[in-house]
Amino acid sequence: LDYQHVQVPFEITLWIMLASLAKIGFHLYNKLPSVVPESCLLIFVGLIMGGIIYGLNDRSPPVMDSDIFFLYLLPPIVLDAGYFMPSRPFFENIGTILLYAVVGTIWNVFGIGFSLYGICQVKAFRLQDVSLLHNLLFGSLIAAVDPVAVLAVFEEIHVNEKLHILVFGESLLNDAVTVVLYKLFRSFCEMPTIKSVDVFAGVGKFFVVGLGGVLVGLSFGFTAAFTTRFTKDIRVIEPLFVFLYSYLSYLTAEMFHLSGIVAIISCAMGMKRYVEANISLKSHTTVKYFMKMWSSVSDTLIFIFLGVSTIGDNHEWNWPYICFTLIFCLIWRALGVLVLTFFVNRFHVNTITSKDQFIIAYGGLRGAICFSLVFLLPDFHRKKLFIAATTVVILFTVFIQGMTIRPLVDLLAVKRKRESAPTVGEQIHIRFLDHLLAGIEDISGHWGQYYWKDKLEYFNSKYLQKILLREYDQPKSSIVLLYEKLERKHAIELAQAGQLGHGPAHPSFLCSAFLCSSRDRTVITDQKLEDTPNPDVLDNMQEILARNLYRIRRTGPAYNRHTLPGDSEPTEQAKEILILRHKSL
Amino acid sequence: LDYQHVQVPFEITLWIMLASLAKIGFHLYNKLPSVVPESCLLIFVGLIMGGIIYGLNDRSPPVMDSDIFFLYLLPPIVLDAGYFMPSRPFFENIGTILLYAVVGTIWNVFGIGFSLYGICQVKAFRLQDVSLLHNLLFGSLIAAVDPVAVLAVFEEIHVNEKLHILVFGESLLNDAVTVVLYKLFRSFCEMPTIKSVDVFAGVGKFFVVGLGGVLVGLSFGFTAAFTTRFTKDIRVIEPLFVFLYSYLSYLTAEMFHLSGIVAIISCAMGMKRYVEANISLKSHTTVKYFMKMWSSVSDTLIFIFLGVSTIGDNHEWNWPYICFTLIFCLIWRALGVLVLTFFVNRFHVNTITSKDQFIIAYGGLRGAICFSLVFLLPDFHRKKLFIAATTVVILFTVFIQGMTIRPLVDLLAVKRKRESAPTVGEQIHIRFLDHLLAGIEDISGHWGQYYWKDKLEYFNSKYLQKILLREYDQPKSSIVLLYEKLERKHAIELAQAGQLGHGPAHPSFLCSAFLCSSRDRTVITDQKLEDTPNPDVLDNMQEILARNLYRIRRTGPAYNRHTLPGDSEPTEQAKEILILRHKSL
Repeated sequence: LDYQHVQVPFEITLWIMLASLAKIGFHLYNKLPSVVPESCLLIFVGLIMGGIIYGLNDRSPPVMDSDIFFLYLLPPIVLDAGYFMPSRPFFENIGTILLYAVVGTIWNVFGIGFSLYGICQVKAFRLQDVSLLHNLLFGSLIAAVDPVAVLAVFEEIHVNEKLHILVFGESLLNDAVTVVLYKLFRSFCEMPTIKSVDVFAGVGKFFVVGLGGVLVGLSFGFTAAFTTRFTKDIRVIEPLFVFLYSYLSYLTAEMFHLSGIVAIISCAMGMKRYVEANISLKSHTTVKYFMKMWSSVSDTLIFIFLGVSTIGDNHEWNWPYICFTLIFCLIWRALGVLVLTFFVNRFHVNTITSKDQFIIAYGGLRGAICFSLVFLLPDFHRKKLFIAATTVVILFTVFIQGMTIRPLVDLLAVKRKRESAPTVGEQIHIRFLDHLLAGIEDISGHWGQYYWKDKLEYFNSKYLQKILLREYDQPKSSIVLLYEKLERKHAIELAQAGQLGHGPAHPSFLCSAFLCSSRDRTVITDQKLEDTPNPDVLDNMQEILARNLYRIRRTGPAYNRHTLPGDSEPTEQAKEILILRHKSL
Repeated sequence: LDYQHVQVPFEITLWIMLASLAKIGFHLYNKLPSVVPESCLLIFVGLIMGGIIYGLNDRSPPVMDSDIFFLYLLPPIVLDAGYFMPSRPFFENIGTILLYAVVGTIWNVFGIGFSLYGICQVKAFRLQDVSLLHNLLFGSLIAAVDPVAVLAVFEEIHVNEKLHILVFGESLLNDAVTVVLYKLFRSFCEMPTIKSVDVFAGVGKFFVVGLGGVLVGLSFGFTAAFTTRFTKDIRVIEPLFVFLYSYLSYLTAEMFHLSGIVAIISCAMGMKRYVEANISLKSHTTVKYFMKMWSSVSDTLIFIFLGVSTIGDNHEWNWPYICFTLIFCLIWRALGVLVLTFFVNRFHVNTITSKDQFIIAYGGLRGAICFSLVFLLPDFHRKKLFIAATTVVILFTVFIQGMTIRPLVDLLAVKRKRESAPTVGEQIHIRFLDHLLAGIEDISGHWGQYYWKDKLEYFNSKYLQKILLREYDQPKSSIVLLYEKLERKHAIELAQAGQLGHGPAHPSFLCSAFLCSSRDRTVITDQKLEDTPNPDVLDNMQEILARNLYRIRRTGPAYNRHTLPGDSEPTEQAKEILILRHKSL
């Protein structure tokens, strides 16, 4: 036995296997996932496993490594989120999302930081050694809403598209703010004195980190699109480029201390339309499928690890600090959403209702990002208190808020997502209105979103498409593409329906010949009677053969001296074929 | 800049990216890959890169890590090979393959080992310090034909199925022999005295290593099939299980010092038919696509690393030893094939022709497995000589034999692979003959391959299918499955053909309405005239709309007071639809 040799890949494979099996297990009982979100169940599995490891080894189970989390587990989830991001609602609400993500997060960080500092001044709580800077640092890591947790819960409750994109977009884009504030306060904690220059440099970093991320992401995205122009002869490695370039964009951004999340999202959104047009249909299925699979596994592993890491001696319990952290997290988020939405609603016709505001505030779940950041803190004497408080906030938001949000959405009758996709007619009308509004904005000299969208579309078709698309001389109109897609789907459905349709059974020569052969076979080796194909299968075959014999029949009469082509018989036959194979026509 | 932090994943991603880009580069010039096999080009790229690294750093570039090779690069290739192994020719020729793989490899090992020992006795060559055991050890690593190299060359030359499976099957199954002999001689080298017990134990190990591998592989394969019974609700992680279980089978086998290659092949072949039936169509596309992609990348990386590792100061040059190694490798293989085929041909009706024998002997390419094994040797003073000899043999076989085998196959007019898939009629006849032969064997009491195949099929449908398949009560006959597959393919082709068919253009209300809207648009913002959809696209749309208006026209006359259903007009229309959409009917 040589376990040492294979240990690393073996344990990784086993962990992934465990995560996948846990997922299967939950879905075997259909009722469970409809009540409890999967994330809660996974954390629960993690808690049990952590307990077992703790019990057996008598020491804390290993904590989720922050490097593993940020380098290997987070990117697949964010890539998936970026690639499948509905771009229309995202760009329509980009202003509101940025307001929540930037101003809202700063508001939360300072709100939570200062009020916790206030709590620390109460002598009875014995917290006077926690400085303002430490509180702000803690605020910067606990304030950020977590995209993984939000996605896990909101994917199951199906709220309307706008509400979903507001919460989810915020959770993604606040990464830039979190990165800056967290690193700023951490470096302040280690500095002897803080100059005002440092504070201004910090403000400047916001733009560098955010816009730098976008720039890195877009450049990798366009390079990816450009690369897939040349893969026509080796279709099999096309999917690879989508993954490689987006991962490189994330790593490059992290390397330069930019926002990796923002970079990978920009990369995915930038390359999507070009890559889709360049690569083959099967490659695209593989890309989509693999992305979903990978993010789903990452997500599962993160929640299990979160559960495992909770168990152990890493915690210092202090009732007031932990309780007030939880309370402040809830209060400041609610206040922030109220105030910001008030301003947003003044400038928009399509306002955010108070129900929506409640769900936005209530959906601010914390997750694995906070958890990894708190473990990345430099060692100081109250680190264990921060870990305990973070753990409590995460477990509270994921378990209590995550489990009650679905009943609340039902209770408040929050507007749901429409189930059906828009019809072709609707899409044409939307397109028409876009053109119209762009024209109106152009005439009135208002540089609104339609104006910019139109400009971008123009730039895209004039320059980008020619560089990035393989068949740039024939860019297919989106309506033609949609038609092709629908037609393909329809054809497959027809093929499957034709399979199931019960036509009249005509046991024919070919059919009986086949039956004979299989019967002969049973006569020859008479000991295994069970071997005969069962009657269902035989019926099935008879049907198929009977249906296909139309072809033979049809070629017959066409050469007949006595009947003309177009006579009653072939017509009936054509109709019969139509009825049999194309019920939907 | 924080490179340390992201170094590991960044460099891995860059290597994979380089490999993929190199692949694209070769395929941009169509003529190159048709003359030089890809493996040669990749080694060449590796040599150049190695040279650059050597020139810049002034020390040997890093050698391909044997652990990385055996744990991460080899499994995807073998998994792909096992999963797509054509099982019928493989099992029909299993006896011959095993003879070549086991007896042939032992023959080569001892032949090369003893004759090199003979060379070492010549005083002029200054090789008297290389003992017999060391020569045998060297023989055990240099004798094994490499599946990666064989696959890379034979996939491009398209020889007939039997010849292909003989060479390729041998290269896969000789792993068990290589593992045993290599480990045996290595432990003998380190032992002070060798007892006869050890030798017998070595012989016993053959069976343990080979059969153990099969057992481990099959048990993981069946577990995988069993697991996919329960994934109906979470289709998205289905492909994962195929990869996880097969990788686990490889690692488990390696852990117990069994043959990992044999294990992963058994796993893949064992699970294939059940997994295919259980998982969804899209999952299966993803599995197949990803397997091909992964193995293709691994393969590329291996050859590039092989090139890079060749450069450096790891070599000790000794003309006689290296030349004689090369000559003995060629001679002993040729002799082995001749002798073994002589025996094989005596017991078979369908003999192996002398042309085929030449290609089998000539196709015995060496590759990365030898290379990794020679670096895994324990340190002793002549290790560098062995490394040099191995490198020369690999480069000679891959470059000289790999590049000349295609012209030789053309010159000798070796029977090629038939291009077209067998028709349904042929398949039915083959099935019928199988049944007939099984019956004959049963009556005559001869336990031949048909008898065993029949027994296995019976066991499969009686027990295995019921346990491993989801819909075990309705196991679809393979002919029904084939029909479904053909029908689906046909439907997609129809949809695409309908797309291209030029029906009569009927500019209609809907169509012109759409055109109007887009023309209005250009009138409103008259500055961008280039924005109008180009005429091709408009023609395309007109066509599509015209074709689909049939549906509207058809519902019209059906309610007309003056015409009866079945009147001339709808019939013509049905025929037109038929002609337009079902040209193949």
